[in-house]
Amino acid sequence: MARGQLLLVIYRTGPLLQKHLNHMWSFLNDAFIDEEKAVLHCTDLSIQRGYAVFDFFKVVDSVPVFLDDHLDRFYYSAEETRLEVGYPKDEMKRIILELLDKNNSRDTGVRITATGGYSVDGYQLAKPNLLISLQPFSIPTPEQLSKGITLMSYEHQRQLPHIKTIDYLMAIWLQPLLKQSGADDILYHQERMVSECPRSNFFIVTAEKKIITPASNVLKGVIRKKLIEVARQEFEVEERDLSIEEIKTANEAFITSTTKTILPVRQIDEHTFEAPNKIALHLRNQLLHLQAVE
Amino acid sequence: MARGQLLLVIYRTGPLLQKHLNHMWSFLNDAFIDEEKAVLHCTDLSIQRGYAVFDFFKVVDSVPVFLDDHLDRFYYSAEETRLEVGYPKDEMKRIILELLDKNNSRDTGVRITATGGYSVDGYQLAKPNLLISLQPFSIPTPEQLSKGITLMSYEHQRQLPHIKTIDYLMAIWLQPLLKQSGADDILYHQERMVSECPRSNFFIVTAEKKIITPASNVLKGVIRKKLIEVARQEFEVEERDLSIEEIKTANEAFITSTTKTILPVRQIDEHTFEAPNKIALHLRNQLLHLQAVE
Repeated sequence: MARGQLLLVIYRTGPLLQKHLNHMWSFLNDAFIDEEKAVLHCTDLSIQRGYAVFDFFKVVDSVPVFLDDHLDRFYYSAEETRLEVGYPKDEMKRIILELLDKNNSRDTGVRITATGGYSVDGYQLAKPNLLISLQPFSIPTPEQLSKGITLMSYEHQRQLPHIKTIDYLMAIWLQPLLKQSGADDILYHQERMVSECPRSNFFIVTAEKKIITPASNVLKGVIRKKLIEVARQEFEVEERDLSIEEIKTANEAFITSTTKTILPVRQIDEHTFEAPNKIALHLRNQLLHLQAVE
Repeated sequence: MARGQLLLVIYRTGPLLQKHLNHMWSFLNDAFIDEEKAVLHCTDLSIQRGYAVFDFFKVVDSVPVFLDDHLDRFYYSAEETRLEVGYPKDEMKRIILELLDKNNSRDTGVRITATGGYSVDGYQLAKPNLLISLQPFSIPTPEQLSKGITLMSYEHQRQLPHIKTIDYLMAIWLQPLLKQSGADDILYHQERMVSECPRSNFFIVTAEKKIITPASNVLKGVIRKKLIEVARQEFEVEERDLSIEEIKTANEAFITSTTKTILPVRQIDEHTFEAPNKIALHLRNQLLHLQAVE
């Protein structure tokens, strides 16, 4: 049904159905609420001091993908930032499944956030606010998958890289420079040692078909972990330091993330890879299969 | 009147007066609103990605202190982060003065925040949200002024240090370590070169009575600027690189900020200063005088 026709039906069946169709639920602290009411007062430490952690997972055919891994990381992030989630993991799972059910969402993204709470003085931690909300996401285009993307290297090290905090200040601040460069995303490095992209982990495939990814100063992505597991069945995989110079000797490079799964990289700055997607696309298929049978 | 008596009066005069007495106003985007309604939806980029800038100034005897300087810096921070404030400076001033008037606030703190706005995908900038709200603050205790505070040095460099962003992730994350150390605040350094405290600028007074403050990798505080102006009338002042080693040769050290004005430092890590507050308290008086006559 075209959007125009659907709107006509909604108009004819009246405001009750319209509200029902538009209505989305979120979860805030202890209750399911109208998505529009998923608000935080400005005294929350996320707004005051950028202090919050989160996680994001996909739901495909009504199944939250790698949910246990995402919850494990979310609880780890919360613990590392002294934020009490307020529910044990199994209770969180139940809330998430109920939220998906209430929203009748077969395919979506879900974001879980724990913030520093309503601080009395805008600095001290308070009781955390827990927010779970649906957040759609875009997937790679066929062209990105076949041609690969381009990366712009930039010298920066995220603070507390092992924790999934809301600190993306530099990534968003760099958007105009990124646009100007014509690249698709940023690759952080410090003193020529590569770490990660703002929302993805980074890998190379060497001429000897070894798969290498930076070991330190990165967020340990869920797909990064799954990729290493899957790749180890066929290839040698190393987690270790990786320099920009070494990258340029690689056969191919790719990035991994929850929304992208795997995306081949065809170019970093001025350097172009010979075989931009051979093993990357093979591993992508392996991962999509793993995701489907989980 | 004691608090108990006041509450009794409120109880007897009924809910209307109670509401009137408790009611505080904030300003959000284009309207004065009940302070309780100063909320942002969770799609705001401050909550999603820690992307927002702010400024904070004192109001003393109904006069906003150094307001022009704070507004200049706020507009600079907003411009550097591509956030449109939405009002010219003189209009902002008018809104701030009206807000103070509506709240009948003679002595308070005011926080102005501009966020990345309600992002369609949780990453792209949107129309900024502008929030102005009253925020009380605590002033130094007489003991802190006479004895000075202690600092714990910590290796960290704030990202985009020249912009007053909401990025205080590291400062808040370090609070348990700070408490454990017994120190009052943190002094950031990188490779032994000192920058600033999380919410203050740092100065030393050398044996030759030269006043030195780090020139780079710091937020240029309003009180820092005023201090330099005031101090130059009597002392030689240098803005330049400053190492932890050089600090230890100083006669005294102090920090400056809007809420603290000047606070002497008696100790950094294991090092204690000989004359912890002689020139610091003298300059403090000069600054308080400047603030009063502004």
